[in-house]
Amino acid sequence: MALVVQKFGGTSVGDIERIKNVARRVLDAKNQGHQVVVVVSAMAGETDKLIRLAQQVTPDPDEREMDVLVSTGEQVTIALLAMTLKSMGCDAKSYLGFQIKIATDSAFGKARITGIESEKMLEDLRNGRVVVVAGFQGVDESENITTLGRGGSDTTAVAVAAAIRADVCEIYTDVDGVYTTDPNICPKARKLSRISYDEMLEMASLGAKVLQIRSVEFAKKYDVPIHVRSSFNDNPGTLVCKEEREMERVVVSGVTYNKNEAKIEIMRVPDIPGVAAKLFKPIADANIVVDMIIQTSSTEKGCADLAFTVPKTDFSKALQIVKEGVREIGGKEVLSDENIAKVSIIGVGMRSHSNVAAQMFSALAREGINIQMISTSEIKISCIIGSKYTELAVRALHDAFELDKPSVTEEK
Amino acid sequence: MALVVQKFGGTSVGDIERIKNVARRVLDAKNQGHQVVVVVSAMAGETDKLIRLAQQVTPDPDEREMDVLVSTGEQVTIALLAMTLKSMGCDAKSYLGFQIKIATDSAFGKARITGIESEKMLEDLRNGRVVVVAGFQGVDESENITTLGRGGSDTTAVAVAAAIRADVCEIYTDVDGVYTTDPNICPKARKLSRISYDEMLEMASLGAKVLQIRSVEFAKKYDVPIHVRSSFNDNPGTLVCKEEREMERVVVSGVTYNKNEAKIEIMRVPDIPGVAAKLFKPIADANIVVDMIIQTSSTEKGCADLAFTVPKTDFSKALQIVKEGVREIGGKEVLSDENIAKVSIIGVGMRSHSNVAAQMFSALAREGINIQMISTSEIKISCIIGSKYTELAVRALHDAFELDKPSVTEEK
Repeated sequence: MALVVQKFGGTSVGDIERIKNVARRVLDAKNQGHQVVVVVSAMAGETDKLIRLAQQVTPDPDEREMDVLVSTGEQVTIALLAMTLKSMGCDAKSYLGFQIKIATDSAFGKARITGIESEKMLEDLRNGRVVVVAGFQGVDESENITTLGRGGSDTTAVAVAAAIRADVCEIYTDVDGVYTTDPNICPKARKLSRISYDEMLEMASLGAKVLQIRSVEFAKKYDVPIHVRSSFNDNPGTLVCKEEREMERVVVSGVTYNKNEAKIEIMRVPDIPGVAAKLFKPIADANIVVDMIIQTSSTEKGCADLAFTVPKTDFSKALQIVKEGVREIGGKEVLSDENIAKVSIIGVGMRSHSNVAAQMFSALAREGINIQMISTSEIKISCIIGSKYTELAVRALHDAFELDKPSVTEEK
Repeated sequence: MALVVQKFGGTSVGDIERIKNVARRVLDAKNQGHQVVVVVSAMAGETDKLIRLAQQVTPDPDEREMDVLVSTGEQVTIALLAMTLKSMGCDAKSYLGFQIKIATDSAFGKARITGIESEKMLEDLRNGRVVVVAGFQGVDESENITTLGRGGSDTTAVAVAAAIRADVCEIYTDVDGVYTTDPNICPKARKLSRISYDEMLEMASLGAKVLQIRSVEFAKKYDVPIHVRSSFNDNPGTLVCKEEREMERVVVSGVTYNKNEAKIEIMRVPDIPGVAAKLFKPIADANIVVDMIIQTSSTEKGCADLAFTVPKTDFSKALQIVKEGVREIGGKEVLSDENIAKVSIIGVGMRSHSNVAAQMFSALAREGINIQMISTSEIKISCIIGSKYTELAVRALHDAFELDKPSVTEEK
């Protein structure tokens, strides 16, 4: 008997028939002897419908009231799921954020969970009830309703699992696990049976959108194993868990890509202290997140070339700021390129394996792909390349690191 | 400067344009120097849509979860109205039942308000904010969401007005006040400028559906004047308030009718103690509300005839119970009639005027309408007649008591 949290997203609860399917799945787990807490999102499309209503009022609706509005989506789903379970003879009870004190800060629309009261849920479970919790929402200290941002129900599920010390948090989604890379561009992509929290964090932040990043951070912090699996079949999915020694034998676990960045270069900047600070402060003040930053010696003596990437949505704003600032710091020329992509290889095994970077560069070189920028972390190497080479690069790297073959660990 | 509660029903907030109209009306009041609390219902049609969703799950959904579901309707409206007000430059804040502790009992779907915390609202008002409160909902002792039943937002508005000691509770609706009778069947019907709580209670319970009965009971208990008025114009409506001496000069204030009852008669029941109890207990046990009961001497010696009315929806169930019980108590025959109507005249002035009943009976007799049953209270006389005479009777009574002419009080 295990204590299980199951999370179902908007597509899985998109209509009454699907809600009945979810209820059956919950019942299956219960009949197998498990205690079950279910976390659900709003029915697919509902949140967008509510946002459109608000947009009819004003393009810039009040953030507190926006959260009051959009949190109704999950409220509808928990009520429907709980009454479905009851109609099937399974005792169940729904809870909103305020009812189990899903405490958050007051950052409306992107709040962070700070605590959850587990007593009511644990008592219901002891009494044989299925507990149904509204994802995505919480309350701040003043009992204002808050929401956690897109994908926030994942975080709710993990936080609930941490609070009640669940054995596993199952995230049901429309894909059946985490893949070595995007199967849409690399047919050889293989489902991973296990992946570490750190690898998952890099996978997610680099564009493999299976789980909300924050939920993985939460899971790592409280050591909650996450099982990512399909809501449409019973196949085992991918377990996101603590790093295990065997994982290190695998050098690279996955290949990701991101086409949503653009590059800005400033040529021949005087190489004196404080230049970078002067350049990046106004960009940070404009709330633009800079990803990669690279500084190299310039062809002109006593000068450096600076290059960095920003999200495409912020590109024109960032470019304008740079053009205004470049005279002040004495830069000679500003170049920019929107047609770039970032490809990355990720793996905890990199820590103990040398030569991984060289292998990556060779694989790209063999395909004639020029590398514009490189950045590395402990478990990740990223290269900026021309965006038209993205798919080619992903497939080349997938082949080079033999990701289509199950690792020793996974074969067991 | 006054402290005003304004309540807007589903039609008044039926779409974004109408919500903007409501916001303008609230702003008008605020600009006139008043402090304003607004109570709103769900957008027209939304509650029914949610009920239909639940019906797709099961014909008999769990009551607790039903309240979780339907209370989202008001939540959507308060968020939209508050963000509309803010977008117009008026500081505003929305509150759900749990946030201002609209405490109720645990009778899901028909809960009664037991208390409201006024602190947050009063502080907001002091800070120049408009307070927007979700109607229809509350929380019980265990923080379960409850709802107050159809028309419950009226009661929320009056309860909020009582809690913050508002000067008046304005109920905006699609009619512009309380009429002497239904204008649809009596063109001479006249809008009343004032009516007492007790008269309004009789009017409402007898079928003039302007206000939820419970809201009037609440208003009477806490002496909250209710101003019933149109949300589509600025005309003064009807003030429902404490009885004033002048009101007694008016004998009859209104004529109402009700076609939703049916009559059951049991002939020649042995006239011995305990018979009525034996007959009505199983009906009460089946949760059927009996309205009029009349017992008369039968043509057969030592026997009585019993007649009573029940709601048409419970008619067949009640008839079955009676037919089963009638042998036991020794009744001879059961008759029934669904084609009846109840017409009533109402007025606090009846207390000090004699002969009102006789006037009523004469008016009906002049039109050749046979009276089947009569019941009287301190401020009301009701007659059961054949339903086909309803409209004729209403018009005849309206004329007989000269309700088309403004009373002395109202002329002032």
